[in-house]
Amino acid sequence: MVKVAIIGASGFTGEKLADLLLGHPEVKITYISAKLDKEVRFSSLFPRFEKKLDLVCENLNLEKAVKKADVFFLALPHTVSFRVAPYLLKEGKIVIDLSADYRIKDLKVYKEYYKVEHQDKVNLKNSVYGLPEFYKERIKKARLLANPGCYPTVSILSIAPLLREGLLKDVIIDAKSGITGAGRKPSLDYHYAHLSGNLFAYRLFGHQHLPEINQFLSEISRRKSQVIFTPHVVPIERGILATIYAGLTKEAGKNKLLSVYNKYYAREPFVRVFENKLPSLKDVIDTNFCDIGFGVSGKKIIIVGVIDNLLKGASGQAVQNMNLILGFDESLGLK
Amino acid sequence: MVKVAIIGASGFTGEKLADLLLGHPEVKITYISAKLDKEVRFSSLFPRFEKKLDLVCENLNLEKAVKKADVFFLALPHTVSFRVAPYLLKEGKIVIDLSADYRIKDLKVYKEYYKVEHQDKVNLKNSVYGLPEFYKERIKKARLLANPGCYPTVSILSIAPLLREGLLKDVIIDAKSGITGAGRKPSLDYHYAHLSGNLFAYRLFGHQHLPEINQFLSEISRRKSQVIFTPHVVPIERGILATIYAGLTKEAGKNKLLSVYNKYYAREPFVRVFENKLPSLKDVIDTNFCDIGFGVSGKKIIIVGVIDNLLKGASGQAVQNMNLILGFDESLGLK
Amino acid sequence: MVKVAIIGASGFTGEKLADLLLGHPEVKITYISAKLDKEVRFSSLFPRFEKKLDLVCENLNLEKAVKKADVFFLALPHTVSFRVAPYLLKEGKIVIDLSADYRIKDLKVYKEYYKVEHQDKVNLKNSVYGLPEFYKERIKKARLLANPGCYPTVSILSIAPLLREGLLKDVIIDAKSGITGAGRKPSLDYHYAHLSGNLFAYRLFGHQHLPEINQFLSEISRRKSQVIFTPHVVPIERGILATIYAGLTKEAGKNKLLSVYNKYYAREPFVRVFENKLPSLKDVIDTNFCDIGFGVSGKKIIIVGVIDNLLKGASGQAVQNMNLILGFDESLGLK
Amino acid sequence: MVKVAIIGASGFTGEKLADLLLGHPEVKITYISAKLDKEVRFSSLFPRFEKKLDLVCENLNLEKAVKKADVFFLALPHTVSFRVAPYLLKEGKIVIDLSADYRIKDLKVYKEYYKVEHQDKVNLKNSVYGLPEFYKERIKKARLLANPGCYPTVSILSIAPLLREGLLKDVIIDAKSGITGAGRKPSLDYHYAHLSGNLFAYRLFGHQHLPEINQFLSEISRRKSQVIFTPHVVPIERGILATIYAGLTKEAGKNKLLSVYNKYYAREPFVRVFENKLPSLKDVIDTNFCDIGFGVSGKKIIIVGVIDNLLKGASGQAVQNMNLILGFDESLGLK
Repeated sequence: MVKVAIIGASGFTGEKLADLLLGHPEVKITYISAKLDKEVRFSSLFPRFEKKLDLVCENLNLEKAVKKADVFFLALPHTVSFRVAPYLLKEGKIVIDLSADYRIKDLKVYKEYYKVEHQDKVNLKNSVYGLPEFYKERIKKARLLANPGCYPTVSILSIAPLLREGLLKDVIIDAKSGITGAGRKPSLDYHYAHLSGNLFAYRLFGHQHLPEINQFLSEISRRKSQVIFTPHVVPIERGILATIYAGLTKEAGKNKLLSVYNKYYAREPFVRVFENKLPSLKDVIDTNFCDIGFGVSGKKIIIVGVIDNLLKGASGQAVQNMNLILGFDESLGLK
Repeated sequence: MVKVAIIGASGFTGEKLADLLLGHPEVKITYISAKLDKEVRFSSLFPRFEKKLDLVCENLNLEKAVKKADVFFLALPHTVSFRVAPYLLKEGKIVIDLSADYRIKDLKVYKEYYKVEHQDKVNLKNSVYGLPEFYKERIKKARLLANPGCYPTVSILSIAPLLREGLLKDVIIDAKSGITGAGRKPSLDYHYAHLSGNLFAYRLFGHQHLPEINQFLSEISRRKSQVIFTPHVVPIERGILATIYAGLTKEAGKNKLLSVYNKYYAREPFVRVFENKLPSLKDVIDTNFCDIGFGVSGKKIIIVGVIDNLLKGASGQAVQNMNLILGFDESLGLK
Repeated sequence: MVKVAIIGASGFTGEKLADLLLGHPEVKITYISAKLDKEVRFSSLFPRFEKKLDLVCENLNLEKAVKKADVFFLALPHTVSFRVAPYLLKEGKIVIDLSADYRIKDLKVYKEYYKVEHQDKVNLKNSVYGLPEFYKERIKKARLLANPGCYPTVSILSIAPLLREGLLKDVIIDAKSGITGAGRKPSLDYHYAHLSGNLFAYRLFGHQHLPEINQFLSEISRRKSQVIFTPHVVPIERGILATIYAGLTKEAGKNKLLSVYNKYYAREPFVRVFENKLPSLKDVIDTNFCDIGFGVSGKKIIIVGVIDNLLKGASGQAVQNMNLILGFDESLGLK
Repeated sequence: MVKVAIIGASGFTGEKLADLLLGHPEVKITYISAKLDKEVRFSSLFPRFEKKLDLVCENLNLEKAVKKADVFFLALPHTVSFRVAPYLLKEGKIVIDLSADYRIKDLKVYKEYYKVEHQDKVNLKNSVYGLPEFYKERIKKARLLANPGCYPTVSILSIAPLLREGLLKDVIIDAKSGITGAGRKPSLDYHYAHLSGNLFAYRLFGHQHLPEINQFLSEISRRKSQVIFTPHVVPIERGILATIYAGLTKEAGKNKLLSVYNKYYAREPFVRVFENKLPSLKDVIDTNFCDIGFGVSGKKIIIVGVIDNLLKGASGQAVQNMNLILGFDESLGLK
């Protein structure tokens, strides 16, 4: 059994990591930490784990932590991960970071969107962006894995095959997300009485996931990507549905487009592309799947992609990446 | 037009009061206050009031306030109202208090449940409990009105006629409330991701509305009342449904029981008692109605009552009380 | 008091019409019909109307109906209205049709999208499209009013000013609607257990509101409009939020764009355009408002518009149109 | 691998059985049937099973079915199971029936509550009521297992230990259930727009689960049980919370009561009794747990129990029972 640790376990992604890793046949959770007023059992934070995971959730002590585990999941806020990862890497640990800290390679862009100077330029260079459908070989060799954001995961998986084949232009992503995407910290915006029956867009032209999407799409398509991306909050707990509008560079029928998707995804365990229907969000909730459907009219295409933001959009993908790094079957513990 | 003020307007009951008073043909809102970091227009706090109510929501200044209005609604937290009401009463104003401060006549009980010593014993003696279906004449003459709590309103209206006629014993109230009953302050318990799909009971045997219910029922039935009362939170925004279990002191058919209810409520504009069906919560949402239905089996009765906690359970009843005090039609602005 | 009838009162728009017309100071509901297995009181269909509206909801009898009322609201399914309106018009009645039957002027397009041949070409020619912000003078003289669809109302109000001034091109409308937009007929898709936590797009490139939007925008801008329009269902009861993507034909700052909106809407009672924020759906629920916000980046614009689909998107706008036709204040009974 | 069949797989419990049995390491689903207009792949009925379970869901053919599987789960409506089970039993198959048909031993009571004459009296005599916490040894030998109802499961587990020890009297069960308990058939009552924000009680004194509860409690306590039971629907998908009111036959502190619960449940894998808190519904959703908490005041006790109605209240318990019958670990495939 591989010993794994969750650092920053008091949020939604930490909770979901605990859930997945508990059910994983080849690993054992040996250390959990979170920033708490006082140390409590994990099952006090999340009562559903009573009788299932009763480890104490400790305040982070790196020297102690490295003695306890070999793989570290960082479910920390942005700008905290880059203070923790260097020590772990130096001690020879595998680090899977769910924050944005090791995703953006351009330091200026990082500062523009996350408002602080990056503090770990050395490791940033070697981080691997953990999207298994495109970077499987790199991931297998990674020591520092930058787990993709939730919006980027569903957006990129829906777009990348067609874009890479030169079929798309003028991409617009209209994304709708459940509230767990915003984190577990209480706020009037997330108050049940405020969100129930509500719906709103936010951060037009300026969401921090925009550069992450563009960086990947630019690399994969070998030309500068400049998509438009608008996030929305909908009154659901989990899941993202992205509706993507684009022009086709040449007319292409459904079969042609489907064959392009199949070229990339036919052997992927967690992507399902539909021929004759559109995906519903609920069909991927509690799964690690990304479901994709689309429609075409002349030289216009509309693509609809869905994921569970806590699974394929965060903790599920992190475990998928761990499986690749450790040489396990990619879908172990995820079905 | 009568000039009215809302003191403590940043919560759900304050918002709903503004809504009702704006639509009331005989009054005008002339002063609004709330405890805020900085003074802002009311429509900044609640954007739905844009173009409808653009008064500035000020930090409370009592000397200024008394020059602006003649009727004061206190939508303040418990233990704050009794610091504000005395000055307003001394200046000859009418005070309608939505907090619990002037409901409980027994000072020891108040301290036991609200954890502080009451600071305004003088006015407490003269406060009138504002349940119009039972105390209409007293209310018409009130200067200091204690507006009933949400749980007590639906519980009492469902029970009191049968209890007063000596028909009930061993009363148990199982109440289910929407989340606005818990207030607008953010908390993990009210986070959408926590409450959605959730359901829980709280404060068994010890909720602060229990003594309010017992005080009223004791007075109306002229014998000590000791009901059991359990509140629950359900994932809805507004409304309370109370399921009430009791023994009948003698066998009584549906018609007999219905005639008792009609004796008390036939001329009341806001109570509907159903003969052949049970009430649904949604049918009273956005109305000032209390709907009541019941079933009988031998000497057991089950009564189901529903209200909108923000209307009949708070702001709607407060306006109903204001109408009575000012000599208007009881339902003015409430239909 | 003007006597009004609701034909087809068993759906959501019929219910909401009853609500609004009951509260309207200058009209009286004198006839209600719906297709039912047996005639029942309206308050049996919708218990919330108990003690408020106890008229019997009859099976439609046109000869009887015309003796009872002078203004007829048709809340009928598409392809039924054009069988009912001719008789009413011949008898000199005012007809406000909430179906699509008198909206589309092109008979071929009607047949393409609604799958039947139109049966009332004569009256179709004279019908007036009831969008008060643009056609106020025509509406005042209308005898047959085609009340706009819900998606078209919010889409057109958000786009039309900028489009008419020649500022917009390449318009894409991504619309998210609550479930009441789909009607009251039970279906597995609308089952609570299916829709709760769910989200999906439907009818890519082919929704029946698309030609309605294009017809209006073509007329107002005097050039052929071909927008892309994608509807989605979200797990809320009421409301539509439309996120609209377009190119600007020339660079234009926020102030310039705001002044264009103000040129059209400054005197309109039910449109609010925000300078520095985006609208939230919930702020227009239970109101007749359309709220609009937007963001600009270079020559790209994103506009967000929201309405309550049952009010500004259906019954509220129908009452607004009735007010104009009858010479009342436009907002009577709607504030 | 044991071959298992699901008969009646188009409802919520059938879907959940498929989910659980797919993940079970010792069984294989080899036959699925449902009453459909035409035979389709199971993943057409439930798209979330795409790429996971693509068996065709056939119209039931018993002769074919018995050749395909050895254990049969009947997720059929009441009064249908007793037409199917006899043939399967005669062929030597193990039958786990999720309907009510083999739960009620008294034929008159069955007819009173289910409105038809029971058609399989022979097998009814030998059916075993599948509540593992009380009947483990009987279950291990069962050939025809009557899987308990959802309301009875949570009610009985919360009450039975204290009742059996002679500590309880005058039991009242106020139960609140999510909508999946009502089945998957569309109805106006379950329309999202009707149920969202709604709450109602139904069938006072007459729900069909009442005799099931009383039958078990009578047997376990060796005296006639006559509880009061009121079901409610709340706007959630899954889960039941039961609030139970009772008198204590003698004063008993928390520790004493806790020790009684522990006597029955300390070794049970799926019951958690809390000492110092009340259970929240959400903590058992997607688990097979029944969580129990309680409060005491004098000789009054309030007990709160929660389960996921589709797991411990139906399909999860059915798999638990299968494990016992087949000699597997009781919690195999359920953690």
